Amino acid sequence: MKNKLIYKYLGKVLIGYSFLLLVPIIVSLIYHNSVLPFIIPLLLSLFIGLLLNRLKVKNKTLYARDGFVIVTLSWILISLLGAIPFMISVKASFFDAFFEAVSGFTTTGATIFKDVEVLDKSILFWRSFTHFIGGMGVLAFVMAIIPLSRDDKSMHVLKAEMPGPSVAKLVPSLRKTLFYLYGIYVCLTLVELILLMIGGLNFFDSLLIAMGTAGTGGFSYLNSSLATFSVFNKYVVAIFMFLFGVNFNIYFLLFIMRDIKTVLKSEELRVYILLYVFAVLFVLFNTYQMFNNLGEAFTSSLFHTSSFMTSTGYSIGDINIYPTSSRILMLFLMLVSACAGSTCGGFKVSRLIICFKTIKRDLLKVFHPNSVHIVTFEGKKVEEETIKSTCTFLFLYVFLIIVSMFLISFDGFSFDITLNAVFTTFANVGLSFDISNFAMFSNFSKIVLSIGMLLGRLEIFPLIVTFTNLRK
Amino acid sequence: MKNKLIYKYLGKVLIGYSFLLLVPIIVSLIYHNSVLPFIIPLLLSLFIGLLLNRLKVKNKTLYARDGFVIVTLSWILISLLGAIPFMISVKASFFDAFFEAVSGFTTTGATIFKDVEVLDKSILFWRSFTHFIGGMGVLAFVMAIIPLSRDDKSMHVLKAEMPGPSVAKLVPSLRKTLFYLYGIYVCLTLVELILLMIGGLNFFDSLLIAMGTAGTGGFSYLNSSLATFSVFNKYVVAIFMFLFGVNFNIYFLLFIMRDIKTVLKSEELRVYILLYVFAVLFVLFNTYQMFNNLGEAFTSSLFHTSSFMTSTGYSIGDINIYPTSSRILMLFLMLVSACAGSTCGGFKVSRLIICFKTIKRDLLKVFHPNSVHIVTFEGKKVEEETIKSTCTFLFLYVFLIIVSMFLISFDGFSFDITLNAVFTTFANVGLSFDISNFAMFSNFSKIVLSIGMLLGRLEIFPLIVTFTNLRK
Repeated sequence: MKNKLIYKYLGKVLIGYSFLLLVPIIVSLIYHNSVLPFIIPLLLSLFIGLLLNRLKVKNKTLYARDGFVIVTLSWILISLLGAIPFMISVKASFFDAFFEAVSGFTTTGATIFKDVEVLDKSILFWRSFTHFIGGMGVLAFVMAIIPLSRDDKSMHVLKAEMPGPSVAKLVPSLRKTLFYLYGIYVCLTLVELILLMIGGLNFFDSLLIAMGTAGTGGFSYLNSSLATFSVFNKYVVAIFMFLFGVNFNIYFLLFIMRDIKTVLKSEELRVYILLYVFAVLFVLFNTYQMFNNLGEAFTSSLFHTSSFMTSTGYSIGDINIYPTSSRILMLFLMLVSACAGSTCGGFKVSRLIICFKTIKRDLLKVFHPNSVHIVTFEGKKVEEETIKSTCTFLFLYVFLIIVSMFLISFDGFSFDITLNAVFTTFANVGLSFDISNFAMFSNFSKIVLSIGMLLGRLEIFPLIVTFTNLRK
Repeated sequence: MKNKLIYKYLGKVLIGYSFLLLVPIIVSLIYHNSVLPFIIPLLLSLFIGLLLNRLKVKNKTLYARDGFVIVTLSWILISLLGAIPFMISVKASFFDAFFEAVSGFTTTGATIFKDVEVLDKSILFWRSFTHFIGGMGVLAFVMAIIPLSRDDKSMHVLKAEMPGPSVAKLVPSLRKTLFYLYGIYVCLTLVELILLMIGGLNFFDSLLIAMGTAGTGGFSYLNSSLATFSVFNKYVVAIFMFLFGVNFNIYFLLFIMRDIKTVLKSEELRVYILLYVFAVLFVLFNTYQMFNNLGEAFTSSLFHTSSFMTSTGYSIGDINIYPTSSRILMLFLMLVSACAGSTCGGFKVSRLIICFKTIKRDLLKVFHPNSVHIVTFEGKKVEEETIKSTCTFLFLYVFLIIVSMFLISFDGFSFDITLNAVFTTFANVGLSFDISNFAMFSNFSKIVLSIGMLLGRLEIFPLIVTFTNLRK
């Protein structure tokens, strides 16, 4: 392991991160909150970053495994540093603060705060800001602002951080690709921000919710999530959650390339929309008797389907009234989640499609054993390597979920609660049936669930590579 | 599709099946029960069988897909015919009777009878006999007694019916292989029968329980399953459940080839024993406070671990007292189940090992991208095809479980009950938490669960091939 190069890279990430910490400091100054909670991690981050950056490195080759290691260690470091504001400002225990920070950066949105309405504005901002940064990837953000190394090397890092089975450069230059992706991200967020303000929210609150939606996070500044929002704003958030679940390549094709033909042909987009529409209608059909009128029922079903499927986790009412059928559907959508190349967690629609197509291919093989059958996706051949890694991912996903459930179960909660806690953290959703708050879990469980959130966000493999690597 | 050859083959299976139906008729005569419940399916089976067998077939080539289709259609036919005794003798509805028959043949052991103690001896015998026949495979039984076609053709059928990722001929001749396998099966059953009689049971009751253990089924002649058994007999059943979960190749190597070296090297056996010992100790540790003494706790943990892991489903007490941790462990063992080439359902230990080894290989690839890495199992190279089909199986397994849960959920039971019902039928266990009896489900759910049992027993692919094939 070429430790030095990895550490040097980490140093650069930390330097970039310290700049990010300036933002909540500005917010603190505006709202007359203490800047101390953010100054300390900023200085720590900058100090360690500069120290690591001074390392002299001879061999500058970066391999795929190094990309995995850098991403994993970066995420752990930024979560540890990002926990400090909670420890200073609200005297949260380390376990609580770390859980909250991981929940923020992984855009899960599960909280350990029983009352968020008493929190400082700067802390509320920090929570939503971690969603915004985490959604597109912390390293992607750093890479977009400071050049870390040559393009071909950074690709390994970007691949390890971006969710979904495939990351393609939109344009030949990596930085330009990042520029476009972040451009789309910021523009969508701004449009939502403006719409929320038109819907009656003030600038600060709109910003928090827009950032939380963009990263498909789910932290709210109200204890009731978005239950008290106007109907207009509920629809704004529901629609934007759906939009942030779309593969960003689609927006690139739509807004930059103006290539509507390719967009309409996108298999992942079609399946995503189909699944979404089916779920909205099913939940509506399954729950409408519980509401005063069809309109209310529709708002609830549209909103919560968006929230679960895109792994956001906002809610506008009590979801515990949902019958078993709707619960199972929501749990399924949680695990599948939305499109690759979006800010969502989960297995991803594209992987689901690849799995089904592989089965279809295997069936064709049984009927026509002597013909050649290839799996295609979005008009291109899917490499056997991708098929295999999709399968390995599924196995690890299922296996780690079961192991986590087993570890959490020692807290003594019911099977139901144990399952929901693990599903919602692994899929980076944050919203779940029968759990209003994660403070009730033991410190051990909080660490297990934090690891689960990281495993879910980084799609498992980077963490395993890192910890296998470190033992050597 | 060469329909005719398949139908001719089905005809032979039905003729063989009609001979099997003579056995419960003999039992009826001995115990002075009506023979009508068995005479009708016998005559039907013989009549249809002879009719189909008269078909003239020109092309006698049998492909892999034909093997799948023959096995699936045979299992559906024998279940339909096997349901008739329940409809005649106890006036069970078609859905109940079909569920009970499928549960019997697939060695699940989930029952719709609220009171089994009032049933005729012949019906009790029939239930346990279906376990005994279903365990090794109905077609394997027929093949062992009447030659259906040349060896190379029948192999496709055997492969489609035998559980586990690989079926190898023990000896060059297929019939001889079957002879050995059935020999081991019958001998083990007889030893258990004798031990149970020594433990105080009469011949008939011992026979029922021995047949139920052999097939890893789980139907009992008592409403309390085996709760009233002597401690000695509880241990006999617990140990024999474990033994029937071992790959039969191991017994072949042990008793016929006397090759202990290879047996000791068996990876699947080692992992099976490890998992088993871990589970027994864990459940003991997790539940001992609930029992009067450590001995009772150990008996319960040993018995129920055997029962869940080998997909048998006998019980000796209330398992609903188990804490969440033990429940999750049992659900996991249920899904994994025991060894390939045994009479158990589930994913199989061998597949679990292959999945882990594939992940290890993938990790090695990341570290040493230019070296060649192969997956080995039991000292042999695992073909990429096997790895892929293991993955596809896992995906289908997970996906069909979720779909079944969704379909069952319309009955309005809790999430917990819905999940347990589907897991226990898919894994062919029959025993489950929070469900004492399957009569409570709707007819629709009974059909879904019956299909689930067949999917689990035949390992999914044959059913899908058949129903894709039939549409052509």
